[in-house]
Amino acid sequence: MAKINQNYLKLPGSYLFSEVARRISAYSAAHPGANIIRLSIGDVTQPLAPSVVEAMRRAVDEMGTAEGFRGYGPEQGYDFLRQAIAQNDYQARGVHMDPREIFVSDGAKSDCGNIGDIFGTDNVVAVCDPVYPVYVDTNAMAGRAGEYQERLGRWSRLVYMPCVEENGFAPAPPKEKADIIYLCFPNNPTGAVAGREQLKAWVDYANANGSVILYDSAYEAFITQEDIPHSIFEIEGARTCAIEFRSFSKTAGFTGNRCAYTVVPMELERDGASLNALWNRRQSTKFNGVPYVVQRGAAAVYTPQGREQTRAAIAYYQKNAQVIRDGLADAGLQTFGGVNAPYIWLKTPGGMGSWEFFDLMLDRANVASTPGAGFGPSGEGYVRLTAFGGAQATAEAVERIKSAL
Amino acid sequence: MAKINQNYLKLPGSYLFSEVARRISAYSAAHPGANIIRLSIGDVTQPLAPSVVEAMRRAVDEMGTAEGFRGYGPEQGYDFLRQAIAQNDYQARGVHMDPREIFVSDGAKSDCGNIGDIFGTDNVVAVCDPVYPVYVDTNAMAGRAGEYQERLGRWSRLVYMPCVEENGFAPAPPKEKADIIYLCFPNNPTGAVAGREQLKAWVDYANANGSVILYDSAYEAFITQEDIPHSIFEIEGARTCAIEFRSFSKTAGFTGNRCAYTVVPMELERDGASLNALWNRRQSTKFNGVPYVVQRGAAAVYTPQGREQTRAAIAYYQKNAQVIRDGLADAGLQTFGGVNAPYIWLKTPGGMGSWEFFDLMLDRANVASTPGAGFGPSGEGYVRLTAFGGAQATAEAVERIKSAL
Repeated sequence: MAKINQNYLKLPGSYLFSEVARRISAYSAAHPGANIIRLSIGDVTQPLAPSVVEAMRRAVDEMGTAEGFRGYGPEQGYDFLRQAIAQNDYQARGVHMDPREIFVSDGAKSDCGNIGDIFGTDNVVAVCDPVYPVYVDTNAMAGRAGEYQERLGRWSRLVYMPCVEENGFAPAPPKEKADIIYLCFPNNPTGAVAGREQLKAWVDYANANGSVILYDSAYEAFITQEDIPHSIFEIEGARTCAIEFRSFSKTAGFTGNRCAYTVVPMELERDGASLNALWNRRQSTKFNGVPYVVQRGAAAVYTPQGREQTRAAIAYYQKNAQVIRDGLADAGLQTFGGVNAPYIWLKTPGGMGSWEFFDLMLDRANVASTPGAGFGPSGEGYVRLTAFGGAQATAEAVERIKSAL
Repeated sequence: MAKINQNYLKLPGSYLFSEVARRISAYSAAHPGANIIRLSIGDVTQPLAPSVVEAMRRAVDEMGTAEGFRGYGPEQGYDFLRQAIAQNDYQARGVHMDPREIFVSDGAKSDCGNIGDIFGTDNVVAVCDPVYPVYVDTNAMAGRAGEYQERLGRWSRLVYMPCVEENGFAPAPPKEKADIIYLCFPNNPTGAVAGREQLKAWVDYANANGSVILYDSAYEAFITQEDIPHSIFEIEGARTCAIEFRSFSKTAGFTGNRCAYTVVPMELERDGASLNALWNRRQSTKFNGVPYVVQRGAAAVYTPQGREQTRAAIAYYQKNAQVIRDGLADAGLQTFGGVNAPYIWLKTPGGMGSWEFFDLMLDRANVASTPGAGFGPSGEGYVRLTAFGGAQATAEAVERIKSAL
């Protein structure tokens, strides 16, 4: 008799975004005339940059010719893309990176989940609270999270690091010894960033304890303040303790195009084994590379025009973030994030609960948000707003919130 | 201290195709004038069909406009593709399939590996011998294979089912109770197929024992004989015991385009849990869908022109297979497969070893093959040839083998 992975049965049934979608559609059904503006989902809306479109068209045409056709590509990504990444995302910022340390993939979500394959199930995993649910759920599936404690909204074996107003939503290393630590800066959902010294403390902790930091910097393109690191590898010592996840999703509007990459330094070893070699083996065995056409599109992001065009889309979203921050401040609401991130972390007024405030905004302003409590217990009392909408809709949403509250 | 997945360290170092590539490049270096024809690697060479190219171009253009842009798609694939698959690959062959049973992915290799996520580590896994190495390696990584026995070329906990001349390279169910069974027909590497009665025996065995059959039919488009099933779901009872993997790689030349799908019937349950729901959870949590552009390309395969054009490419490869079979027969060599599959399983003359014959063909005919022993102990005494080359090169390779031997 085939036996299933019992860990799957421990996962709580309803997924945050499904519940948000359910409430929105129930509200719509009850109020057919309502024009709901969704500041809830972290998906981009601006089209692909002309340079990316042009490169993809050329690649599609190549694939239709005998001379230009490409079959299986390298599982790790084409050299042209790995080199462009190493040069533009790292060397240009003074960080040496060997292209062989860069593994191109179909998404940071896939990589954040799949990276668990190369680690034992007996590691102690630390996550921020609130947190992007994928880190937690994939560890729960792999049997590293223990049991789900319904009442606490927590898993028994995970170390939770509260990200709260007092620590600027960027926690210090925990007292406990954590083996694997997920950090995400600029942060989803709080929009917080970590400075150089904060990251240095993490790197020192990890090197002292033999921990591995899984650093998700999918939102680094939104950093506006000069002194904020874009990569964990800007911190001395990170090459012996960190893996970094990056994505073209938010940088270049690739959410429907699927391209990302993961950086595993050559120096990173545990149990005497190279994690670069382990990840290479994992990817070679369980993955077959990203479509050629998509990799050509991603490489075009690094051309001068591509860079200018994608920066313009980011500036567009950054302007939205500012509109949200300013408007909500006018309404007497307190927000965090949104300066170096596409996410605004809105404190609910009067200590209202996340879901209660979600319902209130939906009902009074027809604006959808994402309840902070859905990202973890410390998210209670907040909602997440995103800057990825259209400029006009975003401005209208803010006006509606202002008049409704 | 972070701990790695120790199972990775048990994997034997050299991977079959790497070793083949190493020997070819060593030979090339020593014989700079040699024009080596590679009948070794299972990658397509014909360009994408014009209909596919056209659909992808249109989709790329859409992605560059505000109205046509698509962000995150459904993790399971767009409805337009799931419906086209259900209708054309199943309903047209008299097999009912609900589009919700079809999960579009980036590759059968990914799915064959990732499917292990939803099963416990204590399952007994049965594989054919010889076998596509991904089934074995991914189970070894997950801790289901036990220890690698160098001397035997086998893993201690896997059940090996010899595929030999005596059973037509299609084994009957084993005496042992296997929980998870990988079957691949048309077979890689032997090119063998399984008839309806053979598959019925497997389905009955699986239903009797609660086993799950993981059925890889990535090569079904190469079937020429009318009575050979294209899908395990043509067999009564399969919906309660089988998962099927399909791919556009060999069907439509998508090896560099990356699109495949996995079918998990609603009726398939183990330990009281729906495997469709488990796989859906796995994919929703650790995967973010296939690029929109690629899915549009895949859907074009099902248009009348797309079908005609992709069938023409397959006919081209089938012709190559026939040239190989006929030519080698003329040379007095015995071959199997190649009728319903792009693979020809060539018996080495005079009981020569696989690698010895590989080296001999490389040296005397400058033709690269894949040693059967690399696919498992029962592959010893065979080499695999593929029909995916150019027609001219394939014909020349055959002539060279004929004159060399």
